[in-house]
Amino acid sequence: MPNISDRGQQMPASPIRKLVPYAEAAKAKGTKVYHLNIGQPDIKTPEVALDAIRNIDMKVVEYSHSAGIVSYRQKLAKMYQSININVDENEILVTAGGSEAITFAFLSCLNPGDEVIIPEPFYANYNGFAVSAGVVVKPIRSSIEEGFALPAIEEFEKMITPNTKAIVICNPNNPTGYLYSQDEMDQLKQIVLKHDLYLFSDEVYREFCYDGEKHISAMHLNGIENNVVMFDSVSKRYSECGVRIGALVTKNKDIINTALKFGQARLSPPGFGQIAAEASLDTPKEYFDEVYAEYIDRRNFLVEGLNKIEGVYTPMPKGAFYTVAKLPIDDSDKFCQWILSEFAYEGQTVMMAPASGFYSTPGAGKNEVRIAYVLNKEDLGNAIKTLEEALKVYPGRTN
Amino acid sequence: MPNISDRGQQMPASPIRKLVPYAEAAKAKGTKVYHLNIGQPDIKTPEVALDAIRNIDMKVVEYSHSAGIVSYRQKLAKMYQSININVDENEILVTAGGSEAITFAFLSCLNPGDEVIIPEPFYANYNGFAVSAGVVVKPIRSSIEEGFALPAIEEFEKMITPNTKAIVICNPNNPTGYLYSQDEMDQLKQIVLKHDLYLFSDEVYREFCYDGEKHISAMHLNGIENNVVMFDSVSKRYSECGVRIGALVTKNKDIINTALKFGQARLSPPGFGQIAAEASLDTPKEYFDEVYAEYIDRRNFLVEGLNKIEGVYTPMPKGAFYTVAKLPIDDSDKFCQWILSEFAYEGQTVMMAPASGFYSTPGAGKNEVRIAYVLNKEDLGNAIKTLEEALKVYPGRTN
Repeated sequence: MPNISDRGQQMPASPIRKLVPYAEAAKAKGTKVYHLNIGQPDIKTPEVALDAIRNIDMKVVEYSHSAGIVSYRQKLAKMYQSININVDENEILVTAGGSEAITFAFLSCLNPGDEVIIPEPFYANYNGFAVSAGVVVKPIRSSIEEGFALPAIEEFEKMITPNTKAIVICNPNNPTGYLYSQDEMDQLKQIVLKHDLYLFSDEVYREFCYDGEKHISAMHLNGIENNVVMFDSVSKRYSECGVRIGALVTKNKDIINTALKFGQARLSPPGFGQIAAEASLDTPKEYFDEVYAEYIDRRNFLVEGLNKIEGVYTPMPKGAFYTVAKLPIDDSDKFCQWILSEFAYEGQTVMMAPASGFYSTPGAGKNEVRIAYVLNKEDLGNAIKTLEEALKVYPGRTN
Repeated sequence: MPNISDRGQQMPASPIRKLVPYAEAAKAKGTKVYHLNIGQPDIKTPEVALDAIRNIDMKVVEYSHSAGIVSYRQKLAKMYQSININVDENEILVTAGGSEAITFAFLSCLNPGDEVIIPEPFYANYNGFAVSAGVVVKPIRSSIEEGFALPAIEEFEKMITPNTKAIVICNPNNPTGYLYSQDEMDQLKQIVLKHDLYLFSDEVYREFCYDGEKHISAMHLNGIENNVVMFDSVSKRYSECGVRIGALVTKNKDIINTALKFGQARLSPPGFGQIAAEASLDTPKEYFDEVYAEYIDRRNFLVEGLNKIEGVYTPMPKGAFYTVAKLPIDDSDKFCQWILSEFAYEGQTVMMAPASGFYSTPGAGKNEVRIAYVLNKEDLGNAIKTLEEALKVYPGRTN
């Protein structure tokens, strides 16, 4: 029997996946499990999107254009223009989720062995896309004590080698909820210019910025238009994760033309998903106002609740719908397994994502977890209470 | 400005894509263009699939399981069992089209630099997936004179090096329409066993086998269960290319577990597409009978029509809906461009795929084109007549 590839062996398993059997066992025992581990919001998908799908009128479900349906790209370009991202439909490649956009960018811009610098903690699947593309991730540490702010420019300089080709940011950030300021984005621009690097900017949480903070897109940075590739997705914006529609957006014609060759090889992005995504652009403003209010409310409730627990600390996230919390524990992988398998409070327990999966530095994030506030307040309240009670009795408690 | 990657530069452009501007120019002049170049059938998508989409009843379009919706995999497994492919739902990974299945198999089984042997002419996008995965394609020649039969076992032996890890077949074949016999499949089994290779079998045209010929799946070969990975897709079977749903199927647990890690990184396959694909499994038998009769009729009409043209030869394809035809021309790339840009017969012209794109040996297939019989007979008749007239006046005619 032939061997699995080296990259197949190196490919990280989902950090949450190993907890799934424990969650299932808990449920089988009748325990209610609150899922704080996932980025799957309970927010309703806009009716306009679902209606577009229910009203499809086609006889043959044909391939679409490899770059995505033209009318969708045109409408998407208009949306971007409305937020000062000046692109047209030829600067957009519609992809199967944000995931495919990242993969196409890595394949188009980077050679195997090239290095990308990513502030950690970072979205765990970047590791997977890097393994797929043979790219080396060089993590640069952001710390919970500094609220996960961008590391100092000198720290980036220290990491840069002749193999460094790109910096990857996620803004607002998954898992930290951090939102980069204008100053921080300008710092990134300086580094990118100085070393002629690519800036890959994952902006799938763009619409989730709180407290009046403004989102600064990498596409807003003047003078590095040819260095920037933006990744986008409809998954979070319209709570339609399942449609699998994302986009690669760049002013760099070489990149978009190259990425399109990868796009042509896979023929076209999901057809029905594109129809839903295009219709979603007509989502009424009230939808976003409601969602926004809901998330703000949940965030404040969660952060306040967590910080009230003795020994627990989480900064106030400015965007997305996650926060990373420091717990008084020895090892979050162990703790997250223990709380599912050994603990219940009034028939309830909690599933969280151990932060270790979001760091690539070994041992980092051992006492941190990522908590998503994608549940309603009542459930969140029960989950926080359960966590509080669990920490009181967890055998690996540290202080 | 940073450089595009080497693989981005190596990535082949679609062989048909470069003809698109010529086809568009012809249409702009009012010329009717018959598209014999594409694998996009005009056959209707089954009503059960479209109805399932129109009747969706969901509030939130959530991520599905990374391996695909369980009920879909179970039903798909039953379908496979009915054709003697004994797999269960855990041996199936649902993918974004057959394309993603191939990519996941390459990534899971092959290291960069590993070689795969593929009988040529072959589906052009295998080159793209190979470039993405850093895999080296070693073509082994099948010839139109032998009707594109499997090359002799000795020819395979000559190609095998220490880097050879897999053989890729497409059965029935795109572009040739060839269907491998039991004997040929047994030959492949012997080579695979002797050298412990993977056998990657693209069977997306399985349902299109003609003249009473039986489809022999690679999954039917006893004793090499751990070597075989089958690729499948609903695109052609149900004429729903746009839904982008395929599958990677294997009895090899290491491969399916490894491929699932790549699947987890991209979260899930297209959601609505899976709903359509699952419903498609209930397509009534009459649908296939009609489609089958239609294709047989078109094939016979096309092959007879082509072979009546002086200097033209095409073998009788036993499956799929393509044929490769030899034309009395100097260069099919030039000819396919010329017929679109310089020629019209009664206001009509023809778009075909130059066969050069389906060969990886330089210069091979220069006087061949791939013709898809995805148009109705009237259009096919006009297209054949147009081709006949074009060959009479083409300046690069050879005999």
